[in-house]
Amino acid sequence: MKAHVHVTLKPGVLDPQGKAIHKALSGLGFEGVEQVRQGKVIELELSETDPARARESLRDMCEKLLANTVIENYAIELDV
Amino acid sequence: MKAHVHVTLKPGVLDPQGKAIHKALSGLGFEGVEQVRQGKVIELELSETDPARARESLRDMCEKLLANTVIENYAIELDV
Repeated sequence: MKAHVHVTLKPGVLDPQGKAIHKALSGLGFEGVEQVRQGKVIELELSETDPARARESLRDMCEKLLANTVIENYAIELDV
Repeated sequence: MKAHVHVTLKPGVLDPQGKAIHKALSGLGFEGVEQVRQGKVIELELSETDPARARESLRDMCEKLLANTVIENYAIELDV
């Protein structure tokens, strides 16, 4: 089973990477970009076939390793 | 208008970050993870309101800055 985990900075947390991209886009002449935030997406291939168990395992992975829950949110997406 | 750009490594391109995550998950006792790949997601807030023009502008941003098209694929998603 394939899964995607999206890890994004919580609103209000400073995002220097996003700011750098924003500045670079302006420098290249792209107008009308109001905000840029950068996050991560982690693609996992799991041997688990039960969606409920896979989701639980992924939540555990996020809490323990994939996301820093103090400053980041995560969203789990299963390709069923 | 809000847009998400997903930038992922092309299949076959070595992904040391993904490998490191895979190893760390194994070390934490997560069994049954077969593959891990890490990508980026860039969230943009655009002042453009026409979806077609926004998409064209985003494609241009990807080709010029957001993705390295030699080794990365990108996907554009508009929240209309």
